[in-house]
This record gives sequence, C-alpha cells and structure tokens, in this order.
Amino acid sequence: MARYEHIAGELRDAIVRGDYQIGAQLPTEAELASRFNAARGTVRQAVAVLVSEGLVGTRQGARRIVLGSERSQSFAELHSFAQWARSVGHRAGGLVLDSRRRPSTSSEAVRLAITPGEEVLAVLRLRRLDGEPVLVERTVYASWIAPAVEKLDPACESVTQELYETVGLVFAYGEHLIDAVAAGAEDARLLGVRRGSPLLRQRRTTTSQEGRPVECSDDRYRAGSVTFSIRNSTTANSLVRRAGD
Amino acid sequence: MARYEHIAGELRDAIVRGDYQIGAQLPTEAELASRFNAARGTVRQAVAVLVSEGLVGTRQGARRIVLGSERSQSFAELHSFAQWARSVGHRAGGLVLDSRRRPSTSSEAVRLAITPGEEVLAVLRLRRLDGEPVLVERTVYASWIAPAVEKLDPACESVTQELYETVGLVFAYGEHLIDAVAAGAEDARLLGVRRGSPLLRQRRTTTSQEGRPVECSDDRYRAGSVTFSIRNSTTANSLVRRAGD
Repeated sequence: MARYEHIAGELRDAIVRGDYQIGAQLPTEAELASRFNAARGTVRQAVAVLVSEGLVGTRQGARRIVLGSERSQSFAELHSFAQWARSVGHRAGGLVLDSRRRPSTSSEAVRLAITPGEEVLAVLRLRRLDGEPVLVERTVYASWIAPAVEKLDPACESVTQELYETVGLVFAYGEHLIDAVAAGAEDARLLGVRRGSPLLRQRRTTTSQEGRPVECSDDRYRAGSVTFSIRNSTTANSLVRRAGD
Repeated sequence: MARYEHIAGELRDAIVRGDYQIGAQLPTEAELASRFNAARGTVRQAVAVLVSEGLVGTRQGARRIVLGSERSQSFAELHSFAQWARSVGHRAGGLVLDSRRRPSTSSEAVRLAITPGEEVLAVLRLRRLDGEPVLVERTVYASWIAPAVEKLDPACESVTQELYETVGLVFAYGEHLIDAVAAGAEDARLLGVRRGSPLLRQRRTTTSQEGRPVECSDDRYRAGSVTFSIRNSTTANSLVRRAGD
C-alpha cells in the first residue's frame, strides 16, 4: 500500500468512526503532514482519495469540510443492482419473467425522446439479494438497444456489465424519482408481501455518454430491503423534493 | 430584466421543454453568443445561472452537459418544509402536538454527537400542505438549541426561518436516509390513512455551519404527497443505495 493510501485509510476510519462530524473541518494539509510525518504532496493525494469517495468536500479557506460518513458509490454501482450488491458484500440474482416489444406510451416516449407509438422493449425482472426477492424492475428500453437486451441470458446477473461487454454501452447520466407506493397484485406475488404493503419506488431514466436515453424504469423495492442515502449542503445540492404526482 | 437573465430564461425553457435531453451537450459559449447576438461575457453569466440551478453541469471541453430538467432547490428549500412548499406554490401549515425533554437514546446520541442519556428535546409536529396533513415529523434537538425551539409558536410555519431570525442558526449540512415504511397507529391517525399503508420516510441529521449537529429527525410523508428527485452522473454522485437496516 502506498503511503498516501495508508493516510487516506486512517482519515477514512476517523470519519467513519465519527471523530469528525458531518460539516466539521478537516485539519489543514500542513497539520496533516505534520501528524502523519509525510510530505504535503502525499497528504494532498490522500485527501484527493477522500474527495473522490464523497467523504470530504469543497475547500473553505485552507480546510476541507467533512460531507458524510459513508463512501459514495460509483455511478456504476448506483446504476447496477448487481454491481451495488457486490460492492456491499451481498449476492445478487436476477431473472427475466417477461420480455416483449410493444408501442411506447406517450410518457415513455417523452422520457426516451422518441415518437409516441415507436416500438420499445418492455422487460419485467425480479431481482434477489442473497436469494431473497427484493426488487421488481419494469424497464422499457429504446428500440436501438432492444436487440442487445434480448440476446442477454434471462438469468444474467448484471445487465449493465453485459451491455458494456457486448455492445460497449456506458450508462452515464441518471435522473431518479423516489417515492413510496402500495404493492399491487403482481408486486405482492413476486416479492412475497401482502397487497397494499409499502414499497420504495425508484423511477429512473438513464442515458448514454452521448446523452441518448437508453431506458426508463419503474423499480419497486420491498420495504426494509434498501435505503437511499443522500448528503447535501448549502453549496452542493442534488436532492429535490417534489409534490406528489 | 438584465440581458443575461433573459438568455438564462430562454435556455431554461428549452431545457425544461426537452429540447436538450439530460446528458446532452449545450452549444458552446461562442455558438450561444452568436445565436443570442450577445457578448460572450453575457452568455457566461447566463450559463452560470443555470449551473447554480443544477440544470447544467461540468464542462467537457468547450461544452457543458445538461444535468436535469428541473431547477434544483436551494438547501434552505430542501431543509425547510415551509420554504419548499412556498417555492413550489403550495401553502404550508404546521402544529406542534407534543414537545418534551428527555434523556437521549444511544442512537440519537451518536447522531447528535452527545453523551448517551444527555437531555434532548423531542418534538412531534404535524405538517399540512394546502390544508391536508401530509407529514409527521419526530424531531430530536440537541439541548443547546432546545430553549430556542421551545420558545417558538406551536403553529410556527417555518421553524428553520424562525430559528434563523431568533438565534441566527443556519442549517448548513444534511445527511438523509430515504426508505418506505408502513404507517404505525399514530402515523395513521395523524395522516388520516390506514394502519400499514405506505409512507415515505426521510431520516435526516442536520448540522450548523460550524459542523455542530442540531437535530435528527424521522419524517414520514403520506404516499403520493411528495417525491424526491435526484440526478447523478459518472462524475457527480451524491446518491448511495444501502441494504435495509
């Protein structure tokens, strides 16, 4: 392990332990250099690691502010259920239950930037975490990516990774709407919960690196299986609250 | 309206209309200057407005990427139910139903960075949107801010604004956990829903500008009353998914 990685690890542990509260200031580079008996360039590298993990944020004068006590996930981990599950030490499973082409609805067309009625591929997937059913995904793919999705193994563990490996697709931008809904009949049957019981719903639209919409999805998690964590500050805000729709 | 505000308005309308998809590139400064027949400095000012609203993001070469089709809220709007309600054209109401000092639990102590058992102020508030009950807040305040909270009018519309005006407190950093839960007996009674029906839960810890934890809260929204919207990309990610706890 390089010296800067060791220092990053020590600082990360201190933040996770709560030695520095969220919003508190990290010591200056000079103070850290002296504490770890290291060059300032080495300390700077260590701090850059924590910035990339979302643990510390913008500089205020000579110091940086602690933003959170949990490492941010990469976008890939966030987008992909399988990559996320692996990153947190769980085993992901998935199974396509239904896959069919049909004309797009008008709201799907808006989200995918296509003409209403243009053909899309609608896929129903059940996802498991350590064997337990936790997530029902209803994903609608734009027609240009449909053939690649149809070629995937129905039990494919990571769709994101497979599409990257087979056709070079990179999911790059996401917009997410998160709310709570009651389980419908199909949700209840697939997740093994009672009809009407609470589900955490994530509706997302994801685009390629070129800004082309790839998919829009309605994902429903069994209550208790997953929590979304967001941090924000007066200078960095990506969370928006909206009135119900 | 200044020229740059007019240009920002035109670009904002185009983004909200969907002329530019999320992830798409904005025209270059030079192209925009030519299109609007304006100086590049004026265009730069207009684009800065959109950056501050979270509509466009990091520069990639000469261009900026469209990040979302909805204006980000300021942290104040996000933190404060009343300020948020006003910003989206709704009327907020609130009423304190219970307020009492008691010893902190161990998990509250961790979140507030105090000693377990140290006195806190626990407040139960019901919030209304346009007269409808939509949110039950169970907030625990650190003892140093308790006297100021106890002096507020129980029907105070904006606690955030009142605390700023009375004691100069600025809420500056937040960490939020969002999941779905079933309504308990008290939730059901206060929100006028059936026991067991879905609620969107937001647990938050907020700190002052100095990094001092002020409050931690368990907020429960009636399903359908509110949606959280988050955008992210491969280069900017503040959303983290966690396994249930």
